[in-house]
Amino acid sequence: MTQFLNQKENAVTDAIEGVIRSSGGALARLDGYPHIRVVVRNDWDKSKVALVSGGGSGHEPAHAGFVGRGMLTAAVCGDVFASPSVDAVLAGILAVTGQSGCLLIVKNYTGDRLNFGLAAERARAFGLKVNMVIVDDDVALPELSQPRGVAGTLFVHKIAGALAEDGQSLENVTQAAERVIAGAKTLGMSLDTCTVPGSPKEDRIPAGKVELGLGIHGESGVEQIDFVDAKQSMAAITDKLAPLMDNKPHVVLLNNLGGASILEMLVLANELAIGSISKNLKMIVGPASMMTSLDMRGFSVSIYPLNPEDEALLSAPCAPSSWPGCIALTPVPVVELPDGLSPIKPIPSEHAAMADFLTKCCEILITSEADLNALDAKSGDGDTGSTLAGAARALVGALDRLPLADHTQLYRAIGQELSQTMGGSSGVLLAIFFTAAGDAASSGLPMVDTLKEGLKRMQEIGGAKLGDRTMIDALKPALDELASGVVPAANAARKGAIHTSTIVKAKAGRASYINAEQLYGHIDPGAEAVARLFEGIVRQT
Amino acid sequence: MTQFLNQKENAVTDAIEGVIRSSGGALARLDGYPHIRVVVRNDWDKSKVALVSGGGSGHEPAHAGFVGRGMLTAAVCGDVFASPSVDAVLAGILAVTGQSGCLLIVKNYTGDRLNFGLAAERARAFGLKVNMVIVDDDVALPELSQPRGVAGTLFVHKIAGALAEDGQSLENVTQAAERVIAGAKTLGMSLDTCTVPGSPKEDRIPAGKVELGLGIHGESGVEQIDFVDAKQSMAAITDKLAPLMDNKPHVVLLNNLGGASILEMLVLANELAIGSISKNLKMIVGPASMMTSLDMRGFSVSIYPLNPEDEALLSAPCAPSSWPGCIALTPVPVVELPDGLSPIKPIPSEHAAMADFLTKCCEILITSEADLNALDAKSGDGDTGSTLAGAARALVGALDRLPLADHTQLYRAIGQELSQTMGGSSGVLLAIFFTAAGDAASSGLPMVDTLKEGLKRMQEIGGAKLGDRTMIDALKPALDELASGVVPAANAARKGAIHTSTIVKAKAGRASYINAEQLYGHIDPGAEAVARLFEGIVRQT
Repeated sequence: MTQFLNQKENAVTDAIEGVIRSSGGALARLDGYPHIRVVVRNDWDKSKVALVSGGGSGHEPAHAGFVGRGMLTAAVCGDVFASPSVDAVLAGILAVTGQSGCLLIVKNYTGDRLNFGLAAERARAFGLKVNMVIVDDDVALPELSQPRGVAGTLFVHKIAGALAEDGQSLENVTQAAERVIAGAKTLGMSLDTCTVPGSPKEDRIPAGKVELGLGIHGESGVEQIDFVDAKQSMAAITDKLAPLMDNKPHVVLLNNLGGASILEMLVLANELAIGSISKNLKMIVGPASMMTSLDMRGFSVSIYPLNPEDEALLSAPCAPSSWPGCIALTPVPVVELPDGLSPIKPIPSEHAAMADFLTKCCEILITSEADLNALDAKSGDGDTGSTLAGAARALVGALDRLPLADHTQLYRAIGQELSQTMGGSSGVLLAIFFTAAGDAASSGLPMVDTLKEGLKRMQEIGGAKLGDRTMIDALKPALDELASGVVPAANAARKGAIHTSTIVKAKAGRASYINAEQLYGHIDPGAEAVARLFEGIVRQT
Repeated sequence: MTQFLNQKENAVTDAIEGVIRSSGGALARLDGYPHIRVVVRNDWDKSKVALVSGGGSGHEPAHAGFVGRGMLTAAVCGDVFASPSVDAVLAGILAVTGQSGCLLIVKNYTGDRLNFGLAAERARAFGLKVNMVIVDDDVALPELSQPRGVAGTLFVHKIAGALAEDGQSLENVTQAAERVIAGAKTLGMSLDTCTVPGSPKEDRIPAGKVELGLGIHGESGVEQIDFVDAKQSMAAITDKLAPLMDNKPHVVLLNNLGGASILEMLVLANELAIGSISKNLKMIVGPASMMTSLDMRGFSVSIYPLNPEDEALLSAPCAPSSWPGCIALTPVPVVELPDGLSPIKPIPSEHAAMADFLTKCCEILITSEADLNALDAKSGDGDTGSTLAGAARALVGALDRLPLADHTQLYRAIGQELSQTMGGSSGVLLAIFFTAAGDAASSGLPMVDTLKEGLKRMQEIGGAKLGDRTMIDALKPALDELASGVVPAANAARKGAIHTSTIVKAKAGRASYINAEQLYGHIDPGAEAVARLFEGIVRQT
């Protein structure tokens, strides 16, 4: 899998430079590339307790992204998924530690434990006060003697960071960190593995499955379960967290493992906020990418029981923009709709023939859904068929509300229905078409002319001309022929539709953004829909 | 492609609920689901100019994520990649517009233009002051009569938002918006298309290619070019933007299109900050996901020439946490390394036989790189081979610095070399092994016993015992046999390595997080490395 990186050996230093350059001068780095990759606060005077964390890279924004006032003092960055060397950790400690001492916040991995532990020993040999805490918030493997440190580490960074910023003693900061570690619990889930730079992607999670309890280094999860939807996925996580929560208010941290879209994360945030543990959730951190696993399409949920002091510390302002804040989970206030939206309802009237005709037209569009989507995918976002079929279904469902016996009112009512149910540009354009046709019908014009009036208005507002590769290339010739009958109209529509496949320079609509080669040979989906409509009418009359 | 969504029909409303619930009470929504999906400020008194934006969904956090004090007043959300209906836009306008009037900020797509335009007409019929601006910042298709509105829209939201919050008149806010639109320019690039919910993913961009000038709706780009690396990718973007920039200071917005990892975005931020247009870049917004295209693995760069007023407006505080802030681009301050890192350098000495022996050992590890990585991928993150081979290469390169003629010093020097070049847990463990062996050698123990001492210390600190499925399962039996010769030692190492493939419950190291079935039948990579080392020595002696 290609990635926006340079030589993989430089990925970490490149990223560190990116963090520092976009920090507004808040950050600096130690000399000693490439072995020593340490990001430090640029405003640090060693007067307070220093917080040093870090570990393997690939978890961005952790850890360098959380260096700054109110959080970490320094981050020691290893290679992707590899612990930094003892020398690098030692350099970080020596660079930021003064008389107040230093707390090392280490995730529970053998390498980090060893390297930070040895570095702490060496630092103490210089007479420095150095404490170390080990974060082990992962609850994926309850029987595991050494649980992993994952996203719950952020709670430790924030709470210890706020206390250190407040000038608390190393003992107090360390005790608070240990209290948070004892209470923080995290569980993760993913639809896909991550792509380690320079290595082929492991194809471990089959389609239709989701992995529960995986780590942040591409390690396999505890189990693969069938994927149902976002609700079931979040439930699988919260069902395992619930037994670990007492009935107190908690803060929850919703972490994007790197590759989930923002849309997905927001849907998951909603499921979290309305799910089985929601009654015990008072505050939320995220959804945001905080402790990622490169591009892993997954998320993790971390919980921590709140007391007033920790709530204040989590809510305290801090410099790193990677910290999304700690915010109250609230219900959704629903504001009443303003007046002026609901149009005058038409009086329904019956007309069997018209009902039958409209139903058949709608069926033509419904049966064309897949074909039109496929055509649209060549030039747009592949939804023309669904949009038209959806509107057709809605119209069939609305037949008994429509003034079928009154052409003028029927045109307007159809326009209203389409503007409400269809959405998209085609919805409005067709609404304009029918509304305008209704106006024309009210002035007594014959049917063909009313449709031509609708077309005219639609072109005025939409701006599409003949030859712009739109539905108009089929609709206009059809209406021009309609006076001589449906068959010539249908032939003209088909001729016009086929012609759009030779127009390589679209000028209106989304298709106008496509380069020519990709359009050639493909009929415009709107024009195809018009042609099929007329052809269908021919078949049925 | 599976996604963390429920029914695709509910994706947008689910996400809106997620945004509002995690807004800390700052946001509300209008009644009228599912047709009307409008997010509004929950603290809005209509006393100032209202800013209404929106369009198709799938661009999260845009647009609902930018509703709040100092930015938008309301966001009207359509289906994924589909414009909202006229009624929905009208509802949004009517809900938030007071005597000061309302500005519609619309991206230049036919559907949005039509629906927001018609809604504005209807709203004006109620006597409301409604202005509309069309954002067309995309420069991918210079010849296009209707350039698209993309991520540059954020400049308009922020600057108009700050002015409206400041109580400026509709005329002033509108003029500012038009000024920003005239100056904002954006170009995007992607390695992959996006996954539209409910549709199969279009496989348009072949491996090794990157698409330049694509849109935010999955539309094809202007051209596909060979992908080289992050530097070339950013250069391809900035080379097209450079001719459009005057020599004034600019603000640049680096937008994640949704699927790029944070690591990649930081590398791209660095390339942007040191690239061809950097001399004209004063401030940066991001890197962050602001105007995404679902999960598209790409990014866009937006530029806007700064004047002091706009710089102040972009830097003004605002409520939406989706706005990452506007920050000065700065060079990287490099802090001198602290004292206490550099160990006493050993005095180099020559010893041809030892040099030859070490070289051969290193070659064994170098040639095993791929095999050991493959083994590690079964249980860990697939880097054991690279880690060992990298250290071996470094050691070969350091031979002439080593005290080859002095066993004690040589052990210690090798330990030092490994702790500096290897990183990872194996680096420290082997450093401990050799340092301890050196101590033992200095006390005059025979060679075999010095190695056993190293093993003992390594186990003490690393915590791994025989049978824990680590390199120790091969190393310990080998050293126990070594007194009787290299051949029995190699046989014992191989026997121990093979035994690890039957240990399904690892207790130390990363392999301990894996469930049993996946381990069975795979030799531990560390044990395999030890076995190959002894076997190689046998072949060469």
